[in-house]
Parts: sequence; C-alpha cells; structure tokens
Amino acid sequence: MIGTLFIFSAPSGAGKTSLVTALLKSTPHIGVSVSHTTRKPRPGEVDGVAYHFVSVEEFQTMVGESAFLEHAQVFDNFYGTSQRWVESELAAGRDVILEIDWQGAQQVRRLMPDAVSVFIAPPSIEALRQRLQGRGQDDESTIERRMRDARSEMSHYGEYDYLIINDNFDNTLLELQSIVIARRHRLQAQQVRHADTLAGLLAE
Amino acid sequence: MIGTLFIFSAPSGAGKTSLVTALLKSTPHIGVSVSHTTRKPRPGEVDGVAYHFVSVEEFQTMVGESAFLEHAQVFDNFYGTSQRWVESELAAGRDVILEIDWQGAQQVRRLMPDAVSVFIAPPSIEALRQRLQGRGQDDESTIERRMRDARSEMSHYGEYDYLIINDNFDNTLLELQSIVIARRHRLQAQQVRHADTLAGLLAE
Repeated sequence: MIGTLFIFSAPSGAGKTSLVTALLKSTPHIGVSVSHTTRKPRPGEVDGVAYHFVSVEEFQTMVGESAFLEHAQVFDNFYGTSQRWVESELAAGRDVILEIDWQGAQQVRRLMPDAVSVFIAPPSIEALRQRLQGRGQDDESTIERRMRDARSEMSHYGEYDYLIINDNFDNTLLELQSIVIARRHRLQAQQVRHADTLAGLLAE
Repeated sequence: MIGTLFIFSAPSGAGKTSLVTALLKSTPHIGVSVSHTTRKPRPGEVDGVAYHFVSVEEFQTMVGESAFLEHAQVFDNFYGTSQRWVESELAAGRDVILEIDWQGAQQVRRLMPDAVSVFIAPPSIEALRQRLQGRGQDDESTIERRMRDARSEMSHYGEYDYLIINDNFDNTLLELQSIVIARRHRLQAQQVRHADTLAGLLAE
C-alpha cells in the first residue's frame, strides 16, 4: 500500500472538523472516509457524500461479513467504516483520514497496524468549555455531559502516535500537514513511487 | 531526550548544503553539528564555527575515549562528531542535524538508534552531472570521480528512514521541514513538552 491510513481523534470542541476541512483543501491526494450509517438522511443529505445510508439489515449483513474496519452504535444508530473502500484508496496511492473516537481507533489499529494515529487536544479545559458554550447550541447539562465525554476521550491520548495541542489554528494545520507530508516520504512509499528514478540513478 | 538527531546524507551535487542552510533559517530549535577536524583552518575560518580545529594527538585521544558518534578519515585529515555535544543539545530539546555520508550514518545508527535518517537524491543522473559541471570548479576527470562517488553514496539510500528527491528546491525544503515538524509532535516528545497542559486536561 502506498497510501497511509490516518486516524484522527479528538474530544468534541477541540476543533477537529474545521482542521480536517482545511487539511483536505490544502493537501492533494487525501480524502476522508465516508461512513456507512443506519440513521435516516436529514433534508439535503445525499447518499454517498456525508454518509452511505443503509438499512439496519444491510448494516448487520456487513458486520457479519467483517466488512467494517470499525463500527459503533451511537444512541439508536449504527456507524461503520468500510474496509474495502479504505484499502482500495490506499492501494491507489491516496491517503485516507478516519475521524473516529478512541474505541474505533483501537479496532482499526488491530486490523491495520500501519495506520498513523493523531490525537488533537484543546489547549486547556477552560478553552474546551468556552468552545462548547460558544456554539450556543446546548444547555448547561448537555455541556456538562460533553465535558465528561471529552475527559473520557482525552484519557486515551497516550494510545496515539502523535499528539497535537490545538492552541492556534494555523500552527495546528501546519502540524497536521507535516505529519501527512512526512509520512509520504518514508523510504518504503518513495521506493514504489520513484522506482524508475531510483533505477536510473543507480544504472551504470 | 526531547530533541531528535537527524542524519542527512546526499551525493555531492544533490543540493544538500543549500537545503540545510534554508532549513536552519526557517525552522527554530534546530542546529547543525560542528565537527572536530585535524585539517588546518583556512583563512577566515574561526574555531568552533564551521569546525572545531584540533591536533592529530587531540583527535586520537578523543577516539580512544569513544568521544565521537562517528569519525572518518578524508585524505590526510580526520573528521568526527562529538557525542557529548549532540546529547546535550538533544537533552535541551533542540534538534541536531548531522551532514554525513553513508558510512558515518551507519556508525551513528548503531550508537543512536532513535536517529532519523534522510537521504536526499538528485532527480536524475543527468541533473547531477549538470550540477557538478555547472559549478565550473572541476575538470572532466574530477567530475567523473565525483559521479562515481555519487553512485556509490546513492547505492545506500535503502538504509535511510526517508527518501527525498530534490527536483524542486521549495518542495524539497517543505518536505524536510515536514519531517522535522512531524517528528516533534510524536507522543513521547509531546508528553514531556506539554506535561502540565496534559495534567490540566485530565484533572477532575
């Protein structure tokens, strides 16, 4: 596989979604995995864009066929990442980002030990609380639940290859780009990508 | 050690020197190791800047004390990298670049297995020849010798962690910067650097 599978995890409010959007915009040959889900499409959601929408039966069949790199239940809905799609992207030399939590990350690492995992943390608990409050979407008890969930997610940062503290959007974006670009220039990938050049350099 | 030891190798003419100069200028907290040498200072050369100038006896004493991470003889002169200086830089959180050939790289990897090694190759044999000729310093037989040396150096690219093809100065510089920046955000270094932040994030 020339491409790399990146796992990005972060507590809600750490800024992951905007960072990934900016990373995709600034970096060629990288995409985000589109999950399968059993939840109903919201108005305007197109099948295959944000999600592949499937029935509970279809989802369970895929689970039975070990079709998922990772899958999880969130409230009444199932979500999963198709292993076949990820592997075809990697084989074609494209990098893939999975935005999943620590439990999904553990599942993926078992199946794809070469995956590179990145944990994005907020610069402080106060900053995290402000970001969650600043959204203005949630009441105080929801924010308290999100803070508990965030602490639980953050307690797993030590399982990741890289740790990024998002104290400045531009710096953090540069750090994520650097991780992706550096990875592409590891010997094994470069030997495949530049086989002809290397043969030419060593020919008599 | 928070800092990382980087080994940069390249055949003469691949552009390594200008790349390292630009990398040092654009990236904080990184420096190049200053070698010890027994060759005589040229006019204008200050001790401790390009080299630490020592006598053959001093050099041999340091070899006897295993003071060098790597050392080599080039024609009648000896060159070596002080292990103590490198380790004090790394312990202080600074990264260190060693510009050495494949033989020095092999010596350093044995003593410092965490060193990150980068091989910089020209985009083609023709480009390398043009760069060597373009310098206008050397006659044809010297260029042929340099081409043979370059092929010999390039035959060891497979021993390096990263392989960079220098087909465009700005891209190559970005790739080298990415390798340095990515490395700094590996979990182990970040846990030391951000111990207080992490303790704060997980405190109840």
